[in-house]
Amino acid sequence: MDIYRAPVEQYLKLLKVFGFKDVQYDAELQKSLLENVAKFVEEELLPANKIGDEQGCSLDTSSGKVKLPPAFLELYKKYVAQGYPAMGGAIEYGGQSLPPVLVLAIAEFMASANMAFSLGPMLTPAACQAIEFAGTDEQKSFYLPKMYAGTWSGTMCLTEAHCGTDLGLIKTKAVADGDAFKITGNKIWITYGEHELTDNIVHLVLAKLPDAPEGSKGISMFLVPKYLSDGSHNHVRCTGLEKKLGQHASPTCFMQFDGATGYLLGEPNKGMKNMFVMMNEARIGVGVSGLAMAEIAYQTALSFCRDRRQSRALDPTRHDSSYNADCILVHPDVRRQLLEIKSTNLAMRALVVYAGTMLGSHDTKDADRVALLTPIIKSYLSERGCENIGHAMQVIGGSGYVKDWRIEQYYRDARISMIYEGTNGIQALDLVGRKLVKDGGASMRSLIAEMRATAETCHEKAFKEGLLAACDDVQRASVWLMQKGMADPEEAAAVATEYLKLVSLTLLAFMWVKMIQYEGTGNVSLGLYFIHHILPDTRACLDRILCGKSYIDGVDDADF
Amino acid sequence: MDIYRAPVEQYLKLLKVFGFKDVQYDAELQKSLLENVAKFVEEELLPANKIGDEQGCSLDTSSGKVKLPPAFLELYKKYVAQGYPAMGGAIEYGGQSLPPVLVLAIAEFMASANMAFSLGPMLTPAACQAIEFAGTDEQKSFYLPKMYAGTWSGTMCLTEAHCGTDLGLIKTKAVADGDAFKITGNKIWITYGEHELTDNIVHLVLAKLPDAPEGSKGISMFLVPKYLSDGSHNHVRCTGLEKKLGQHASPTCFMQFDGATGYLLGEPNKGMKNMFVMMNEARIGVGVSGLAMAEIAYQTALSFCRDRRQSRALDPTRHDSSYNADCILVHPDVRRQLLEIKSTNLAMRALVVYAGTMLGSHDTKDADRVALLTPIIKSYLSERGCENIGHAMQVIGGSGYVKDWRIEQYYRDARISMIYEGTNGIQALDLVGRKLVKDGGASMRSLIAEMRATAETCHEKAFKEGLLAACDDVQRASVWLMQKGMADPEEAAAVATEYLKLVSLTLLAFMWVKMIQYEGTGNVSLGLYFIHHILPDTRACLDRILCGKSYIDGVDDADF
Repeated sequence: MDIYRAPVEQYLKLLKVFGFKDVQYDAELQKSLLENVAKFVEEELLPANKIGDEQGCSLDTSSGKVKLPPAFLELYKKYVAQGYPAMGGAIEYGGQSLPPVLVLAIAEFMASANMAFSLGPMLTPAACQAIEFAGTDEQKSFYLPKMYAGTWSGTMCLTEAHCGTDLGLIKTKAVADGDAFKITGNKIWITYGEHELTDNIVHLVLAKLPDAPEGSKGISMFLVPKYLSDGSHNHVRCTGLEKKLGQHASPTCFMQFDGATGYLLGEPNKGMKNMFVMMNEARIGVGVSGLAMAEIAYQTALSFCRDRRQSRALDPTRHDSSYNADCILVHPDVRRQLLEIKSTNLAMRALVVYAGTMLGSHDTKDADRVALLTPIIKSYLSERGCENIGHAMQVIGGSGYVKDWRIEQYYRDARISMIYEGTNGIQALDLVGRKLVKDGGASMRSLIAEMRATAETCHEKAFKEGLLAACDDVQRASVWLMQKGMADPEEAAAVATEYLKLVSLTLLAFMWVKMIQYEGTGNVSLGLYFIHHILPDTRACLDRILCGKSYIDGVDDADF
Repeated sequence: MDIYRAPVEQYLKLLKVFGFKDVQYDAELQKSLLENVAKFVEEELLPANKIGDEQGCSLDTSSGKVKLPPAFLELYKKYVAQGYPAMGGAIEYGGQSLPPVLVLAIAEFMASANMAFSLGPMLTPAACQAIEFAGTDEQKSFYLPKMYAGTWSGTMCLTEAHCGTDLGLIKTKAVADGDAFKITGNKIWITYGEHELTDNIVHLVLAKLPDAPEGSKGISMFLVPKYLSDGSHNHVRCTGLEKKLGQHASPTCFMQFDGATGYLLGEPNKGMKNMFVMMNEARIGVGVSGLAMAEIAYQTALSFCRDRRQSRALDPTRHDSSYNADCILVHPDVRRQLLEIKSTNLAMRALVVYAGTMLGSHDTKDADRVALLTPIIKSYLSERGCENIGHAMQVIGGSGYVKDWRIEQYYRDARISMIYEGTNGIQALDLVGRKLVKDGGASMRSLIAEMRATAETCHEKAFKEGLLAACDDVQRASVWLMQKGMADPEEAAAVATEYLKLVSLTLLAFMWVKMIQYEGTGNVSLGLYFIHHILPDTRACLDRILCGKSYIDGVDDADF
C-alpha cells in the first residue's frame, strides 16, 4: 500500500516551508529518520493493529494483572530497541533531544499505524515532561533515565468517577508518612494504568493533602511507582478495565490506591501546574493522532477508489474501454469527498509543523503562540480527523462499514480523541477563557497580524482574498468576545466552540498560503478546493458568534 | 427513563400540524396506538438491544443455518402476536392498512429501541410492496398473507461483490425451467438473508435472463423462497456473514443461489422498476432509523446532563447550593450541543410526518412530492442523525465512549444508514439527476412556492425571513442546476450533495414555520436556535454550488 510515502514527503517539504533548521538534523537526516520510522511502523505496528483490536485486553482480577495482545509485547521490545522512548528527552537524562517537530511527525506515523499501541508510549514522555518540569534533581536522575530507556513507563492519574472536567472535586487523599506520603483513592480512565510491557509503572497522581485549600488550588501531584525501590509491590492495583467503542488494545484502567507510597512532585497544592505541563504535551499529541487516523483512512479510501470500478464516467472521454465500468475516482462526488479529506489533512499537517517548530523555543512569543494553538490543534484536528474518516468510510461504502478495510476500526479508535485530555468543548473554553484573554488579546492580535501580513504578500488572488476575509472574521469575533465575554462569561462560553472553529479554518487558510508561497503552483488546485469549499464556513461561524448566548440561553431547562 | 414520552407527544402534535385525518384512526386512537407501541418497544425491544450487540449472529457453515441472539426469537413471537408485521399491508391480503404516517412513527420507535432487530421486520413490508406492485393475483394471494402474518419474511437480493451502485453489471443468471426459472449467482449484503425467526424466507432476487439487454435494462426480478411448496429446501444458502462496525445482531449474509427455483415477479427485464418500489419504501425507513437513533441518543444525553454535576454555573444565580457543583445542563456549551440535536430532531420528525401524510395518496402531486422528498429524507436524516449521536456522545464525554450508556452502540449501529439502500451520495445524484429534472423542475418549483407561501403568512419575523432567504438560495441553486447540469452532467454531479443539504435545511426551516404557526409560541425559542445557528449554512451551500465542478475537476487524478 505504501501508505507513508506521501506523508513523509509532505513532512519533508513542510519542514522547509516553515524554515526548520537544526544543526544535527539536516534535510538528509530528516529524510532518513522519517523513512526509517515509516518502514518500522508499516512493517511492525500496522500488522498488529487488527489483531490488537480483535484480541483486546483482559484483567485477571485475582492478581490485578492486565494482559495485552501478545503481539504488543514483542512490538514494545522492538520499539525500545529502536530507541523511540528516548526521542524527545533531555540528553542529560538519557534522552535524544530530538527536535519536537520531528517527534510530532513520528507520533503521527505511530498513531496511524496502531493508535492503541502508541497511546502508552505517547503518555510516558508526557509524564517525563512533568518530572523534568517539577522534579527535584534526585527525582529526575532516578526516574527519567529509566523512562527514556523504555524500561519504565508513566501514566497520568487525574480523573475520579465523580469528577473529570472539574478536578477541584477530587477525593484522593495524601497523608504524610516520613519523607513520603500515603495515597488513598480511586482513579478512572487511566490509560496503560497496568500492563507487563515495562519493569515498572510510574503513576503521576493528583491528590489532596489534609490541609489543602478547597477546589483546584488544593491539588498536589505525587509520583507513585508500581514497584518501590526495595522491589515490593506498592499498594496500587488495577480493579477493572473499561469496555470501549474503540482502542480495544489500549487498557483503560480503574486504579485503586490503598495507602500507596507516593512522593510529592513539585510544590504542595501546585499540582495543576505540573498537570498542565504534561497535559499540553499530550493535547498536541491527541490532535496529531486525529490527523494520523484521517491520513491512513484517506490512503485506504484512495487506493479503494483507484481500484473499484462502478458505473461509467459522466465525461465520455474518460471512459476506460478495457473495462465495463470506470474507476470510481472519476465520479465527481467521490472526488469531492476525497478532496474534503486531502485538502484539510495537508493543511492540518502544516499546522502541526508550524506549531512544532516553535515547541520548546525559549522565545516567549513562540511559547505564547504555542499556548494559543494547543487547544486548537487538540480540538480541530481531532474533530476534522473524525469527520474525514467518515468521508473515507462513505466513499468506500458498504465495504467501509465492514471489518475488511479497517476503516471501521479507525472510525472507532479515533473518536476518543475528541473526548480525552479535555473534551473539545473544554478546549474551546480554554481558548476563549484563558488563552485569548490572558494578555488582553495580544497573542491573538499578533497571530492575526502575521496571517494578514502573509496574505498581503500572496500573489494568488483567491488565497489572498480568502485569508484576508477570514482574518476579518476572526478579528470581529475576537473583539466581540473580549468585550461581551468580559461583561458576561456566559456569552463567551456559548460561542467558544464556534470561535475555535472559525480560528481553525482561518489557520488552515494561512497554512495553505504558506504552502503555495513556498512551492509555487505545486498544490494550487488542491488549495483552491479548500479556499472555495471549506473556508467559506467562516461567515456562518461569525454570524453564530455574533448571536452570543441569545438562542442558547433562551430555552428553558424544562424545554430540553 | 421514559424515553418515548416526548416523541409520542411530538407525533400526536405533528399529526395535527399537518392536518392528518383518518376515518378509523382519530386522535384518541392515534394516542393509544403510539403509547402501546412505546410501551412494547421500551419493555421488550430495548432490553434486548445490548444483549443482541454483545452476542451477535453466527453461521453454522455445515448446515448454513444462522443463529441470532436467542432473545430475538422470543421477541419476534411477541412482535408477531401484536400484529406488527401486518401494519401497512392491504386488508385483502391480511394487512391492517394502517396509514403510512403511523407506520413510520412506529418504525421510529422500533428502530430506536433495537435497530438490529427491527431491520428484518422493516424489510419484509418493503418486499411485500414490490409483490403488491408487480405480482400476479396468484402470487399476491400466495405470499402476502403469510408475510403479513409474520410467518414468512422477505429479503432484497440486489448487490454482488463486483457491483453495488451499478446493478447493470450483475452476473446472476436466470434460466427458464418450465413455468419457473433456475437462478444461479452470489449476492452480498443480504440483510436477514438467513435466520430461524420465520417458517420461510422469500428472497426477491435480481438476475438476468439469457437474452437480456445489457446493463440495467436487462434485469429481472424473481421470487426465490427458501422452502418450496413441496417443503423441500431450495438451492439457496447462506455462505458467510459480514463482520461489521455495528448491527451485530442483524445478519448480513452472503447468499449463494445454485440453480435455485425462482418465479418471475412482474415483466421480464423490468426488475429495476419493482426494485425501486421496494427501495423507495425502504429509503424512507432508513432516514427514519437515523432519526430514531438520534432521538434515543438525545434522551440518553439529556438524562445524563440533568444528573451529572461538574463545575459551577457561570451565572451565580443558577448555583445549586445543596451540592458542590451544578448539573452540566447549566453550561452554555452543553446546552448548545443539546439544542443542536433537539432543534433538528424535532424538525426532521416533522418532515417524516409531512411526507408520511402524502404517502399512499392517489394524488399525482403528492406522489411527485414524496418522490422528491425520498432521497432527502434518506440522506439528510441519516447524516444529521449520525451527527447528532456524535453530539450526544460528546456531552456525555468519556462515559459516552464506553459501553455503559449505549451511546457507543447507537454511534456504530446508525452509521450504516448513511450507506445502505444507496449511499447518501447516490441519493444526492438521484435528487439532481432524476427527481429535479424529470418534469423540468416543476416538482421543485411547486415545493418552493408552497414554502414561500407559508413563510409569507408567518408572523414571527426571524422565521419568515429565514425561510424566505433559504427559499431564494434553493431557487438560485435549482435554476443554476437546471441550466448548467443540462449542459454538463458533471456540474450537477459535483454539487449534488451540497444541493441536497441546502434543500434539507430549507425544508427543516419550513417545518419549523409550520410548527410555530400551529402551536403559537410553544416552541419558538427552540426554533430560534435552529433559525440562527443551523439554517445560516444555506449561504455557504449556495456559494459552493455556484462553484460547480471547477475546483473538484481541477485536481489531476495523480494529485490525489
